[in-house]
Amino acid sequence: MKIQVVENVLKANDAIASANRQRLDAANVLAINLMSAPGSGKTTLLEKTIPAVGNDSRCAVLVGDLQTTRDAERLGQVAVDTVQINTGTGCHLSAAQVAEGLNALDLNRLAILFIENVGNMVCPAAFELGEHVKVVLLSIAEGDDKVAKYPTLFQQADVVLLTKIDLSEILEFNHDRVRDDLSRLNTRAPLIEISSKTGQGMDRWLDWLREQQHQ
Amino acid sequence: MKIQVVENVLKANDAIASANRQRLDAANVLAINLMSAPGSGKTTLLEKTIPAVGNDSRCAVLVGDLQTTRDAERLGQVAVDTVQINTGTGCHLSAAQVAEGLNALDLNRLAILFIENVGNMVCPAAFELGEHVKVVLLSIAEGDDKVAKYPTLFQQADVVLLTKIDLSEILEFNHDRVRDDLSRLNTRAPLIEISSKTGQGMDRWLDWLREQQHQ
Repeated sequence: MKIQVVENVLKANDAIASANRQRLDAANVLAINLMSAPGSGKTTLLEKTIPAVGNDSRCAVLVGDLQTTRDAERLGQVAVDTVQINTGTGCHLSAAQVAEGLNALDLNRLAILFIENVGNMVCPAAFELGEHVKVVLLSIAEGDDKVAKYPTLFQQADVVLLTKIDLSEILEFNHDRVRDDLSRLNTRAPLIEISSKTGQGMDRWLDWLREQQHQ
Repeated sequence: MKIQVVENVLKANDAIASANRQRLDAANVLAINLMSAPGSGKTTLLEKTIPAVGNDSRCAVLVGDLQTTRDAERLGQVAVDTVQINTGTGCHLSAAQVAEGLNALDLNRLAILFIENVGNMVCPAAFELGEHVKVVLLSIAEGDDKVAKYPTLFQQADVVLLTKIDLSEILEFNHDRVRDDLSRLNTRAPLIEISSKTGQGMDRWLDWLREQQHQ
């Protein structure tokens, strides 16, 4: 019975995700689901990305957190519109929460919608939101064993961003191990090394982002 | 119906957790549940703690991960016994998984059982395992906003370890913000700043640990 209920929850979620996708497509908005552990730098990346992605790309953000509106306050400085979704004890965003977020936005004014998921390497991977692409972040402060330990998340990635690369000289981090583990799970996603602090890798990330807009 | 099922799952878990606790008490084993985001340094902390805690404190570890036995292999170097529990897609350890882990251990040989939970700041907070104390780690690489963003986890902590403190000079991290946020949620748990790399704070953590053994 428990398993049956879980299946029903996921099916209901997928149906709402499809409806979200149709709304986004109708308004010609690219939706990007960002997933990672807490503190990998999702919000900081968006603070740097949104002003840099181009004047013709008006961006909004849906941001999921258990509590607080801190991220939305930060992103409100750079985005056209920002909606904070508090999940309470929920460990991921659901398609229904995103649908409510879409209701609060004027989609016709937007080119890109970033969906910053709850900081978590497990639950968000199970819930489609209606996004077009999935971006997975891994901070080098988290250790080089995380791709193998959280395969479900990395399997789904359309791009993997290895963040806080400016800490490379201080932290022991085996880049080859991450590349090897990723190549076994996912041959599709490029791995981009990036630092929101120094700007390293930002060009490659922005190029990747612009390519998604033209697909 | 969904909520009903979730309540039943939690009740069933609590019953098994109570049974685990009785088994641990009967064998006079202190059980410690370590919870944090991925990459906060739980495994490294245990690698340093177990050899240092004292000859009369024989330690075992139950370690939860979605996949891989990497942590168990590391901890097998220092612990009397190590059991890896792979949760598949599960975002936390359950009391039933811990009960199976206890079956694989000779509890009468042990003084301390460390339970290294799945790297996750949300789900583990909802599941009692039968432990005596809860240790919550926060790496300063994760950012100073995490106590406010994940209050359920920090409310339950018996001690909070602020890890990777050796990175303080490089990373911007507002220690006062963490102290203030924690003091609003939890007046019981001491906050110990620690570095498994340099050894800073290890004495205070080991003292805290030994106090738990004598309670």
